[in-house]
Amino acid sequence: MTMIKGIAASNGIAIAKAYKLVMPDLTVEKVTVEDVEKEIKAYENAMEQTAKDLETIKEAASKNLSAEEAAVFDAHALVLSDPELKTQVEDKIRNEACNAAAALDEVSAMFISMFESMGDEYFRERAADIKDVSRRLLANLLGKPLPNPALIDEEVVIIADDLTPSDTAQLNKNLVRGFATNIGGRTSHSAIMARSLEIPAVVACKTITDDVQDGDMIALDGIEGVVMINPDEATIQEYTTKRDEYKAYREELKKLVNEKTVSTDGKHVELVANIGSPKDLEGVRENGGEGVGLFRTEFLYMESAELPSEDKQYEVYKEILEGMAGHPVVVRTLDIGGDKEIEAIDLPKEMNPFLGVRAIRLCFQREDIFRTQLRALLRASVHGDLRIMFPMIAALGEFRKAKGILLEEKEKLIAEGIAVSDSIQVGIMIEIPAAAVLADQFAKEVDFFSIGTNDLIQYTFAADRMSSGVSYLYQPFNPSILRLVKHVIDSAHKEGKWAGMCGEMAGEPLAAPLLLGLGLDEFSMSATSILSQRKLIRGLSQAEMAELANKAINCGTMEEVVELVEAATK
Amino acid sequence: MTMIKGIAASNGIAIAKAYKLVMPDLTVEKVTVEDVEKEIKAYENAMEQTAKDLETIKEAASKNLSAEEAAVFDAHALVLSDPELKTQVEDKIRNEACNAAAALDEVSAMFISMFESMGDEYFRERAADIKDVSRRLLANLLGKPLPNPALIDEEVVIIADDLTPSDTAQLNKNLVRGFATNIGGRTSHSAIMARSLEIPAVVACKTITDDVQDGDMIALDGIEGVVMINPDEATIQEYTTKRDEYKAYREELKKLVNEKTVSTDGKHVELVANIGSPKDLEGVRENGGEGVGLFRTEFLYMESAELPSEDKQYEVYKEILEGMAGHPVVVRTLDIGGDKEIEAIDLPKEMNPFLGVRAIRLCFQREDIFRTQLRALLRASVHGDLRIMFPMIAALGEFRKAKGILLEEKEKLIAEGIAVSDSIQVGIMIEIPAAAVLADQFAKEVDFFSIGTNDLIQYTFAADRMSSGVSYLYQPFNPSILRLVKHVIDSAHKEGKWAGMCGEMAGEPLAAPLLLGLGLDEFSMSATSILSQRKLIRGLSQAEMAELANKAINCGTMEEVVELVEAATK
Repeated sequence: MTMIKGIAASNGIAIAKAYKLVMPDLTVEKVTVEDVEKEIKAYENAMEQTAKDLETIKEAASKNLSAEEAAVFDAHALVLSDPELKTQVEDKIRNEACNAAAALDEVSAMFISMFESMGDEYFRERAADIKDVSRRLLANLLGKPLPNPALIDEEVVIIADDLTPSDTAQLNKNLVRGFATNIGGRTSHSAIMARSLEIPAVVACKTITDDVQDGDMIALDGIEGVVMINPDEATIQEYTTKRDEYKAYREELKKLVNEKTVSTDGKHVELVANIGSPKDLEGVRENGGEGVGLFRTEFLYMESAELPSEDKQYEVYKEILEGMAGHPVVVRTLDIGGDKEIEAIDLPKEMNPFLGVRAIRLCFQREDIFRTQLRALLRASVHGDLRIMFPMIAALGEFRKAKGILLEEKEKLIAEGIAVSDSIQVGIMIEIPAAAVLADQFAKEVDFFSIGTNDLIQYTFAADRMSSGVSYLYQPFNPSILRLVKHVIDSAHKEGKWAGMCGEMAGEPLAAPLLLGLGLDEFSMSATSILSQRKLIRGLSQAEMAELANKAINCGTMEEVVELVEAATK
Repeated sequence: MTMIKGIAASNGIAIAKAYKLVMPDLTVEKVTVEDVEKEIKAYENAMEQTAKDLETIKEAASKNLSAEEAAVFDAHALVLSDPELKTQVEDKIRNEACNAAAALDEVSAMFISMFESMGDEYFRERAADIKDVSRRLLANLLGKPLPNPALIDEEVVIIADDLTPSDTAQLNKNLVRGFATNIGGRTSHSAIMARSLEIPAVVACKTITDDVQDGDMIALDGIEGVVMINPDEATIQEYTTKRDEYKAYREELKKLVNEKTVSTDGKHVELVANIGSPKDLEGVRENGGEGVGLFRTEFLYMESAELPSEDKQYEVYKEILEGMAGHPVVVRTLDIGGDKEIEAIDLPKEMNPFLGVRAIRLCFQREDIFRTQLRALLRASVHGDLRIMFPMIAALGEFRKAKGILLEEKEKLIAEGIAVSDSIQVGIMIEIPAAAVLADQFAKEVDFFSIGTNDLIQYTFAADRMSSGVSYLYQPFNPSILRLVKHVIDSAHKEGKWAGMCGEMAGEPLAAPLLLGLGLDEFSMSATSILSQRKLIRGLSQAEMAELANKAINCGTMEEVVELVEAATK
């Protein structure tokens, strides 16, 4: 029995056999061959096998994922059937009398480097597709087929170095009981995916792919971040109990679906969800979300190479407002730029895109796009409780300008005889330090604030949240962040407005006591976090947490704050 | 008489004839030639002429600029004499029987694109050198020689689209009375250069290169940002008076060289200088600087492809400390990364370098470099009043770590029997919002703060200060910035520490009333701004300015603050 400690990435307990999702060594040596036609035949066979593999994977993926997400495999099939690739590989085999594997290796490397060298995002994605497909081709050629998790037919715990989107797409949620990976952190792709699929996961286990053999028994604790390899009977018993307890806890949580979130001393807060498209609505309802605290509208712009029309947007907004049946729906206007690009808008390359023309700044440069979105929102407003939120507001002048444009479009619609709700709230994201510091002035003019902690932390610490070299500066619990959050909430309340939070922090169990204490009115998070946060908050006293928060903002470091909260809530 | 309004970029009044520094059209058409040898001869002549030009320019430049700055022309001479370039051009002329200009155009374009495509900074600089040299060669070939400001022999006002470093390098300060450019802003290269040379300048005049003919009479007001073209007698008289008044004002300022900077109600502040190398010390003394508020140590690392040794650094620090004869010298430890790269350190490419591994963050990754610098500083500390300042501190733990390393090196030196001062102050730059917000906690542990407004504004507004698309968010007078500054100063004072400022803002006349009012102890700026700020502050009442500042921090926008200050100090 071996115990491995990693980072707890997704709650739950798993007990099952190990399935190692590890890439075989695909190193190729170039050799001269006598029978050129045999190599060509081998290449054609590998192509056929690969086409079959892709079909199988796509089928499996479509059971677990959205059509959108499964579409990557159509792209792969297209690459595979590209005659250019086939011709060049076959020419190379013939001209150089070399083995098919080496020919494929060289030709695909050439294509990949060619596409990668083109600056454009589109071509870089093509390069990734070619890499994926040629790896699969090569594996089949070498007779070392890639692991095919789509074909798993018993309960397993996946052991991998890391999980790519294309790996996770293939997983059958009914059979995969857990993940354990060598690398990653709480915000890495595999961790987020695990939480959204509600599969227990432990990441950053360093050498787990070496420590585990295929078929080993695994007991995994995604709450504590522990993996036991080949546990003895007593340990299995212990984990089985834990698993049952966790299951019971989840059942308990389910009972809270229709309950309010009220602290022990009677303070009521709203728990709402972050969503990306209408298909997320079901999850919000199932998990007892009291509304939508953040609808990211970017997906509308990512679906095609053309900008979404006013009518198309209207239909989507209407669907969401109706789906939430009168509950509040906060829609964030377009937030692209930074790390998010879309095909339909040609963004200038910037040296520091996170500090550049993104979100509202871009909307001011492209008022046409902004006005279309606002018109669609205004038209949809009659179908529910719409709240419009502007992202990346730094100065009061920007809010005034954005609201001015909104009011212009509203007047135009009314003049056209189109109905528009008269009770649309208009607010801003607080994600730039300047706006947080000046929240009292903003509060006089906005209807609400929603604090976007991911960006607020990034800018307050001047540390790119995507850069591993400065990840130690992602400090949600640093007193400086808590002070800004407090100032935002206090400022809102002073003017009779409400303050919410839609960053990662709102769904963190450790943050809940502090945020309740600071007086936050609305917590917006992944739907799957709502019930556990509800249970947690229902067990806390707002008055006691206010005292705790007051101590926290006078700490010197994040570590002191975390210690304080853990001591107070243990 | 035409009046053009631009942006006032460098104080002073100029009255002189226009000299247009405008690039001729160097478009080339490729034609077939019969006499190939004639083309080759023409190319050789152009090479000779260009070599002479470069020699002349270098000579003129060396009168006005440091050897370091004039060295770019040596690089150009090297490119010119590169046999590879010559051979390729001549081969092309022979092989394609084409004109020399077209051959040069194609060959240089090929070299430029080749060097530009290499990621490395070094090669990109080579590309720029080749561009410069081949443009000069082409101009000589086409018989349209480039304007050669080095050869100006009468007083002139330079009219240009913009001024590059290589343009300004050639200017004879004794003859150039002023600049007016089409583009630029107060912080563009040409504006900074004009201020450092104390030449009046107006930038952003839009079409001035079209509006002005060579030899037109120009009256330029760099204080108000106005250019008069062919002014009438009365206007010339008016500007002559203004010029004399400004001269008298400058003379008046000179009298303040040995005076203290004391407000009308007795508050004393220190005016010190930002410097980049020991050769700036003379300017500090001439302008009455009471010390060095920021010594940027980067130049030490930029001079060569190798890291500067401890001994070499020690000599430079010693020279500066002795040069300031007991006055305080604040040395900032290495601040590279972000937009600043050096050859000797291989920085990883980052998506958002301003939010990445720069300054102290890099020093923690490369402790060897950091420790060498600290040892050199500690050894030099016995030669004056040394103050060590860490840049880009965001969290208290970072300061503790940096100071810990400093103390370790100090103990080692003492153990080695080397003398180290016991009164070195150790402080931090406040340039990251997190540190500003938590200044009260930092103040308990640091000896001083120096506010770096350029970065503080950039991060507080999440707006790259180099990106024109978001330049409207560079808002030093936004109440959010003033609040952070106030909190930093108040926090320092509460713990009996001092607070300075070493960003652009400290030298801004409009900022002086607010900063005095907020209680700033030390203003660090370009040496050439010291005397005018001293005069200004000596005319202000600290108590009244404190009242003004209190109003300003409760404004909603930067515009309101500016209005307030202008009304109160007019």
